[in-house]
Amino acid sequence: MTPEPENAATEKDVDEVAMLAALTDQIEASDFGAAQGLLEDMDARSRSRLLSRLPSELQQLLVTHIAPEQAADFIHEMPEVQARDILEEIDPSQAADILEELPKKEQADFVGELPKESMDAILSEMEAEDASAIRLLATYDDDEAGGIMTVKFFAVAETETVGQVIGRLRDNIEEFSDFDVQYAYVVDVENHLIGVLRLRDLLVSRDEVKIATLMIKDPLFVSTHTKLPELHQIFDAHSFFGIPVVNELNLLVGVLRRGDVEESMSEQFQDDYEKAQGLISEEIRAMPTVTRARRRLSWLSINIVLNIIAASVIAFYQDTLEQVIALAVFLPIISDMSGCSGNQAVAVSMRELSLGLVEPKEVVRVWLKEISVGLINGLALGLLIASVALLWKGNPWLGLVVGVAMMLNTIIAVSLGGTLPLVMRRLNLDPALASGPILTTVTDMCGFFLVLSGASIFLSYLV
Amino acid sequence: MTPEPENAATEKDVDEVAMLAALTDQIEASDFGAAQGLLEDMDARSRSRLLSRLPSELQQLLVTHIAPEQAADFIHEMPEVQARDILEEIDPSQAADILEELPKKEQADFVGELPKESMDAILSEMEAEDASAIRLLATYDDDEAGGIMTVKFFAVAETETVGQVIGRLRDNIEEFSDFDVQYAYVVDVENHLIGVLRLRDLLVSRDEVKIATLMIKDPLFVSTHTKLPELHQIFDAHSFFGIPVVNELNLLVGVLRRGDVEESMSEQFQDDYEKAQGLISEEIRAMPTVTRARRRLSWLSINIVLNIIAASVIAFYQDTLEQVIALAVFLPIISDMSGCSGNQAVAVSMRELSLGLVEPKEVVRVWLKEISVGLINGLALGLLIASVALLWKGNPWLGLVVGVAMMLNTIIAVSLGGTLPLVMRRLNLDPALASGPILTTVTDMCGFFLVLSGASIFLSYLV
Repeated sequence: MTPEPENAATEKDVDEVAMLAALTDQIEASDFGAAQGLLEDMDARSRSRLLSRLPSELQQLLVTHIAPEQAADFIHEMPEVQARDILEEIDPSQAADILEELPKKEQADFVGELPKESMDAILSEMEAEDASAIRLLATYDDDEAGGIMTVKFFAVAETETVGQVIGRLRDNIEEFSDFDVQYAYVVDVENHLIGVLRLRDLLVSRDEVKIATLMIKDPLFVSTHTKLPELHQIFDAHSFFGIPVVNELNLLVGVLRRGDVEESMSEQFQDDYEKAQGLISEEIRAMPTVTRARRRLSWLSINIVLNIIAASVIAFYQDTLEQVIALAVFLPIISDMSGCSGNQAVAVSMRELSLGLVEPKEVVRVWLKEISVGLINGLALGLLIASVALLWKGNPWLGLVVGVAMMLNTIIAVSLGGTLPLVMRRLNLDPALASGPILTTVTDMCGFFLVLSGASIFLSYLV
Repeated sequence: MTPEPENAATEKDVDEVAMLAALTDQIEASDFGAAQGLLEDMDARSRSRLLSRLPSELQQLLVTHIAPEQAADFIHEMPEVQARDILEEIDPSQAADILEELPKKEQADFVGELPKESMDAILSEMEAEDASAIRLLATYDDDEAGGIMTVKFFAVAETETVGQVIGRLRDNIEEFSDFDVQYAYVVDVENHLIGVLRLRDLLVSRDEVKIATLMIKDPLFVSTHTKLPELHQIFDAHSFFGIPVVNELNLLVGVLRRGDVEESMSEQFQDDYEKAQGLISEEIRAMPTVTRARRRLSWLSINIVLNIIAASVIAFYQDTLEQVIALAVFLPIISDMSGCSGNQAVAVSMRELSLGLVEPKEVVRVWLKEISVGLINGLALGLLIASVALLWKGNPWLGLVVGVAMMLNTIIAVSLGGTLPLVMRRLNLDPALASGPILTTVTDMCGFFLVLSGASIFLSYLV
């Protein structure tokens, strides 16, 4: 746990390469006991790295030849994308055995992401009751309470006494040991939520006290469809560790824990970051090269087509450009800078959406806020680039053309960048995914058009 | 808490505008009681939005004229960047009163981000013991256990009995009510950690049982300097809700909760996302326009200088370009596409770093993994752009020049994009901040050079 001294690095390096070789040999020789022992002796961090670098056939061999409980631990420590691949590839009954060792919520997370066919095959190997619970959980989105909640909780009746509840806890201590028993949830006979009981209140009460007198009535709750930003705000505003979740019939179906909400927020930000960088599917470098290249290419090929469309504006003004070749220097600058300005506005909108500081419908408010910033920064960037043009070519008209184009295009870029994520959200599209390419294509086209059409108008002053 | 029906949206719209006006009037008329009442009647989500849109002078007036406890709640619900501004602007003794209503960890988070002068002024208004505790907490980084842990925990001695501990819990129920009492931490007389006690084990034990027999010995712990990715992996591998944190002297100084680690991960991803988008300081649109423009401009001005440097390569080859004007169409395409390819590689490295799947020293491994992907995708993009050039101008030499340039530059972009974040991390620089501008400047220069120098060589075949 303590930080490692610097000079241990090389030694560990050699160790990890040697260990990967040893592990590979053991699995290929079907000595799964030795492989399991080797992995169990490592710290979690190295184990996860080592597992992730094992070829996928060997990963599959390993998890299907050790106890499901141990396999579940290993699968849990691997990157999710590899874990899903394994579960999809191995025998469904073995996948079901391994999954059953994980909490329901994580079973649903894994199974929900598999192709329908694999999902059905695995679920058919499980007990009907478990399968239908997982199927239900898998129907909720990742960004709403139903998809984030845990379904393990401790429910009590208001008619019970402290002594009875403590007795029940004592009798089931093993079952409760792996989930957060911070509160008990008080329900009526039909499973409607009627109160919350802090377990520490049990500690300090006499056995004969009725739960009804100890519980907090009318507790805060959320619905299965409450969205992530709102959940995050609720946990920010209250110091609760868990909030009960009810379904459309007001029946208690789960509990949302603070850590689960934070984890989902974290996943969403990571997702947004990766999409903004053009990574639309999870990638780790241990995957096969061709898979990685193909996944990245799907994004690149859309972008190159959009780029060609935008650049065709330049081809249209070829004659002007031929006469004022200096313009060719400014075209990439204006294209890049508009992208920069626009992306900043996108990022502010994404931040405000995730913090709940703006509603998706407030497009006009955002637009008005952006044009004022766009005006100031457009003026600053326009003046700068105009000065560069003037100093370089000594022609004030060239400065005017590129400066004005830069200014106008900055205003266009921030207007579009600020409002696009809101519009996307309203259309139920992913703002992190679509904002970038749409933004840069439009601002590139506008930028090229502004420079070149401006130059065409003032052509006699430029040549 | 339940989702709102669609048709309620317009009504709520009007409400929020009217409420902001009412709140403004109340504060300007010094009717702080009414303002507080109005805010308390709203749901957390609307309140946070309304507070954030209040001009900063009015925010300051409000929090300094209501009870510190209530002010702390409001400050807690505002965006952090506004909350810090308020604490910096108002009277230090009032700021201290408000801060004291928050948990120590959050006090340290707020105070640690203030300019040294404001920090000292506020801390000098607090009790010496509190001030030094906060000062200590503020010395830890946001990405290590010391900066994430909470300092409120329940410590017990191994010599105590269950009855004594429950008695202590009962007597201090109010003090413990706002923190996670899931475990108690067993320490010796010098405050060394020697065990962990699950509080539910207290529930099911007789009063006279000694803590020493009930506690879990040699518990897992982390040091104050253990880094975030490792902490995240530890919580991933174990189902604990909290892990004790010890300092250099092996003394118990805090507890790290699962939710706190997830929250820090979430903040880091949000931070990475925003930096990748060119937002280097927190911005919300309720801030003054000039502040927002200036903050964004700091990033834009660095980028425009880098852009001008890169584009100067084009100026150098002006003669070639003049003779083959069609090249001007391909320059922005190659520049944009290399940026795309490079950013994908940056994103994969950022993901692997944060998941602990790669060590910052494995530059060569990453580079080898990237060139194979770069070769495939470079070939695909190069062939595509070569075909476009061939179809458009009917000149295979033009296709060859732009196709080869695109291919080589894709390989350069992914090599640089994949390895830069690792190199940055080793140099203790922020990979999310610096990778983008360095990457695009270098790949732009290389791209322009490859197209135009290639064209110069084959000039006789191109004109």
